[in-house]
Amino acid sequence: VPAVDTFTLPYGSCHDGRRRYVGVRLGEQVLDLASALPTFEPLLRNGTLDGLLAAGRAAWTQVRRALLDFAADPDQRHLRPLRDVQLRMPFSVADYVDFYASEHHVRNVARVLRPQVDPLPANWKHLPAGYHGRSGTVLVSGTPVTRPSGLRRVGDDVEFGPTQRLDFEAEVGFVVGTPAPSGRVPVSAFADHVFGLCLVNDWSARDIQAYESVPLGPFLGKSFATSISPWVVPLDALAEARCAPPPRDVPVAGYLEDAGAGPDGFDLELEVRLNGVPISRPPFRSMYWTPAQMLAHLGVNGAAIRTGDLYASGTVSGPDPGQFGCLLELPQDGPEQVRLPDGSRRRFLLDGDEVVISASAPGPDGSRLDLGAVAGRIQPAPSGS
Amino acid sequence: VPAVDTFTLPYGSCHDGRRRYVGVRLGEQVLDLASALPTFEPLLRNGTLDGLLAAGRAAWTQVRRALLDFAADPDQRHLRPLRDVQLRMPFSVADYVDFYASEHHVRNVARVLRPQVDPLPANWKHLPAGYHGRSGTVLVSGTPVTRPSGLRRVGDDVEFGPTQRLDFEAEVGFVVGTPAPSGRVPVSAFADHVFGLCLVNDWSARDIQAYESVPLGPFLGKSFATSISPWVVPLDALAEARCAPPPRDVPVAGYLEDAGAGPDGFDLELEVRLNGVPISRPPFRSMYWTPAQMLAHLGVNGAAIRTGDLYASGTVSGPDPGQFGCLLELPQDGPEQVRLPDGSRRRFLLDGDEVVISASAPGPDGSRLDLGAVAGRIQPAPSGS
Repeated sequence: VPAVDTFTLPYGSCHDGRRRYVGVRLGEQVLDLASALPTFEPLLRNGTLDGLLAAGRAAWTQVRRALLDFAADPDQRHLRPLRDVQLRMPFSVADYVDFYASEHHVRNVARVLRPQVDPLPANWKHLPAGYHGRSGTVLVSGTPVTRPSGLRRVGDDVEFGPTQRLDFEAEVGFVVGTPAPSGRVPVSAFADHVFGLCLVNDWSARDIQAYESVPLGPFLGKSFATSISPWVVPLDALAEARCAPPPRDVPVAGYLEDAGAGPDGFDLELEVRLNGVPISRPPFRSMYWTPAQMLAHLGVNGAAIRTGDLYASGTVSGPDPGQFGCLLELPQDGPEQVRLPDGSRRRFLLDGDEVVISASAPGPDGSRLDLGAVAGRIQPAPSGS
Repeated sequence: VPAVDTFTLPYGSCHDGRRRYVGVRLGEQVLDLASALPTFEPLLRNGTLDGLLAAGRAAWTQVRRALLDFAADPDQRHLRPLRDVQLRMPFSVADYVDFYASEHHVRNVARVLRPQVDPLPANWKHLPAGYHGRSGTVLVSGTPVTRPSGLRRVGDDVEFGPTQRLDFEAEVGFVVGTPAPSGRVPVSAFADHVFGLCLVNDWSARDIQAYESVPLGPFLGKSFATSISPWVVPLDALAEARCAPPPRDVPVAGYLEDAGAGPDGFDLELEVRLNGVPISRPPFRSMYWTPAQMLAHLGVNGAAIRTGDLYASGTVSGPDPGQFGCLLELPQDGPEQVRLPDGSRRRFLLDGDEVVISASAPGPDGSRLDLGAVAGRIQPAPSGS
């Protein structure tokens, strides 16, 4: 029996068949937050994190302090077995933005697709590149993902049909609590606005994406589904996981400057499993841009930032084989293709495949925190599409 | 005194200083819908169109029929002077998508920026290109628009500062009522899902956009503000405005095929005024892709379509001078630059400039329907940005 994790204390939206409520995970049990700590009931009214997110940093600290007290001596009356709990979307997603912040991901993909050209776009080290995704198709972990259909190039023709290049992208998402109507969130104010993080699988149809994305960027190749982990890990649990970002080789504008802002990176270790088999361990600490820089960039044009905004890091990848964050980074052929124990290979995902992205991080006293997982299984395209 | 328009009957969210309510415009008066027609009060509860949008086509027809009866013999007790009414955001925007559906716009811009290359991207006539925008910065007409700051190329350098190339884009937006959880809305089912239309100004910072948009498309160059007209015109008012789209020269996939689907275009005449001076009359009937095709494309990958989704046409432009839908289409120099009566010229917008985009359409018995207007005035960038 593993020791109960009484420190991470992630938040989720739970359902017991009759009622939706905000739950907090304690190992293999779930705490009914409003029942255990009725003082906070006004923040928890619709059974999602929406009210808590809007309440701001001071309330988050208060709730967590009370939870740490509870966890030190838990009253079993407020706990339920995790296996009896249905997990729902933890919060209402306002706007969803996806960044592109891993230099290794950009280089790994370029090596496969465009080996002859400079892998980094000219602007890449001047700003954290990003784009808006579809908030209406952000799905909670476990929701089946249907293979999308779309237009793709086949030889010299354009054909409509189910994607032949369905991929995952292992990412980390950041959940905004405190809004910023002016849009302006200095790098140093990151923790005042961001409540916590979740794991993200930004499913991608590479053939649809490749055909559509000049000049307006990714659209239908991404918008069919983005899965997130059901448990949102509060930033407060991740003090030991903060680390320095990699050295930057290009000076940045003042609003992105983070020298002296403290260790703004996160030392998270992701793991990707395909049909139960570990196939990759992407290291989040190698991300070129930090989540604080992404948020500072997002609103520097004055775009209002709202409670429930979700922004994801982009694919997390490392420089080495075994650290890729998506299948697109693998060579077209050759030994680096994913091989499963049953002898089958994967260039891209097949119907029935299940992808689970999990993560861990350093905790207090040398412990290791479990940051949960996001899972999804591919269903075949509907017939006739 | 102009005749009261008792036919268009557009819907808006009104406030009288005490209370928010759904109003219907009757010329220079506003009808308090729930007070005049209490049967429909359950659809109008939060004073926005959200409930009415979700109620679906049968309810929309019922409400409009009752409104036409009311307008034929209006009871003055339920009417208020338009000048006393504050207009708010008419509905809660779920996801916002911006298309790029005018061939003339693409060609006009290419002529200015890239005269040496083929103006149409290779995929342009195979699909209505689009991308997701920021729903949190969709603003109701009249909201001031602050000049955004961002990174832009200045000579060989990259500099941060207020945009020097602030532009408008005259567009038409379509408001989804009935959701489509499967995403799939055949071209023929357009009117079952779309409640009506509004006018859109997709403000654009051309220098920020140019610097950031390779490879992920427009982001901060657009996301600071998108203004919409406060009155949503129901499709039911636009039967006389339907027209055939322009001839297509490239065959399309089955889900985009609209031969035989009836006249799926809209014969709307837009007008752009800058500081009160008419500067352009973009013709919506020349759009290559129809709103029905845009919606069919949006969800063909299975992306759920929700009540409150807003999608805009992209800049509406004609082939002739005087039909441009944005300033970017004007030559860099020369006589086609916008000249105002005070002798000043505009290449791009200055602080203090006001842009008003209005539109009209054919109505019954040779009448002309006023489709309202979207207005916005530019405020200077905050100091220090």
